[in-house]
Amino acid sequence: MMDRYQQKIENMGLFLPDPLVLHQGVVLPFPFVNVRGDRARISGHGPQNPDGSLAGPFGSVGKEVSPEEACTSAKLTGLSILASLKRELGSLERIIGWSHAFCMVKCAPGFENPPMVANGFSDLILEVFGNDIGRHARSAIGAEVLPFGIPVEIEGEVLISN
Amino acid sequence: MMDRYQQKIENMGLFLPDPLVLHQGVVLPFPFVNVRGDRARISGHGPQNPDGSLAGPFGSVGKEVSPEEACTSAKLTGLSILASLKRELGSLERIIGWSHAFCMVKCAPGFENPPMVANGFSDLILEVFGNDIGRHARSAIGAEVLPFGIPVEIEGEVLISN
Amino acid sequence: MMDRYQQKIENMGLFLPDPLVLHQGVVLPFPFVNVRGDRARISGHGPQNPDGSLAGPFGSVGKEVSPEEACTSAKLTGLSILASLKRELGSLERIIGWSHAFCMVKCAPGFENPPMVANGFSDLILEVFGNDIGRHARSAIGAEVLPFGIPVEIEGEVLISN
Repeated sequence: MMDRYQQKIENMGLFLPDPLVLHQGVVLPFPFVNVRGDRARISGHGPQNPDGSLAGPFGSVGKEVSPEEACTSAKLTGLSILASLKRELGSLERIIGWSHAFCMVKCAPGFENPPMVANGFSDLILEVFGNDIGRHARSAIGAEVLPFGIPVEIEGEVLISN
Repeated sequence: MMDRYQQKIENMGLFLPDPLVLHQGVVLPFPFVNVRGDRARISGHGPQNPDGSLAGPFGSVGKEVSPEEACTSAKLTGLSILASLKRELGSLERIIGWSHAFCMVKCAPGFENPPMVANGFSDLILEVFGNDIGRHARSAIGAEVLPFGIPVEIEGEVLISN
Repeated sequence: MMDRYQQKIENMGLFLPDPLVLHQGVVLPFPFVNVRGDRARISGHGPQNPDGSLAGPFGSVGKEVSPEEACTSAKLTGLSILASLKRELGSLERIIGWSHAFCMVKCAPGFENPPMVANGFSDLILEVFGNDIGRHARSAIGAEVLPFGIPVEIEGEVLISN
């Protein structure tokens, strides 16, 4: 069932990817979205291809991955999150307000601008949801290691209607 | 007063450690669990021995600490958290749902699998609480430095009844 | 309008800085405090000068920045957060309880005491708000990179009255 936000995402020429496809032998014993009462807590997500596999480029920003590419990875991570929310909530219209996002960026020595990367995520959320529902508190941190070599990992929380 | 979950933990051959014993001169001016309304926020915990001291091995995963040892450290960290919750809440049965956990893993260069380490925590929580109450959103990040050389630090939140 | 906590801060000889002044070209598309219902989520903040510019020293703790200086940076970061809360809430007296704080410390190799740095923040909050309202769950992590070279970044959450 297509909802208003999903329609908007498609109109922007973007897609919600399939569920994450993991490498053989990898087990992640947790839900990607955990609903408790009026809050949906979002697990750490990475950038995904339409088929659900993790999307490259992989590596550190400022070395294997350019800041511009990482910004796109952050946007793709946002789409992975929206796809998980869609699957868990049934409709993205149940989201009544974004709470916060925590953006982890794998940085090579000398690259000190995680916020610029995280903007790829924030700009997407604001474009899809508008400022009232989409505005979110945010932190960005440079990490030494992220799972599976992804350059960006994002977690957060939204408030939902029941 | 023994509760159902504590009984289960003992039946699994595990223990809830004593309160954290800090090195001389170290002051941590915060509670390990902070209850506000129906939420109990969990401060960063590390692996502990039964007497409350920090449990080794210490160092980076992939160097001083093997991935398997780190997985055990994550499990011990889960037990430290459950011990703090028991002390603060009186009974673990007041926990009506896990919200999320954030797992920080001290990684040596080349070790890129923080999720495998974090599974030591998640598997414990799911075994003790079952999937309905125990399921939690989760993120794992590789950190350059964690307090006091511990290889794993975990924080999170549970919903509680009053 | 001066409130009771702000008065206390001034009596301590401290100040609430002006809004963050960013370098030219830097865009941060998120609010520093995001109010949703009875919760105010605090974005990542750094140490600021009275005029709102980021306050030095910049760099890694244990190298360019001493642990004592970093502790002061954490205190200044607390003041940046209180200034943002004041602007968003109108009065700091609307804060009815601190939930948690997450403290990221940029550490040079060999410096393994992020908690000592984070105490600069916690001690401020406890002195201003007292233990009942000011107590907060806390985690401290050593980060490889923080935005703009700041040695300390802190995010968190408070509960508010409406």
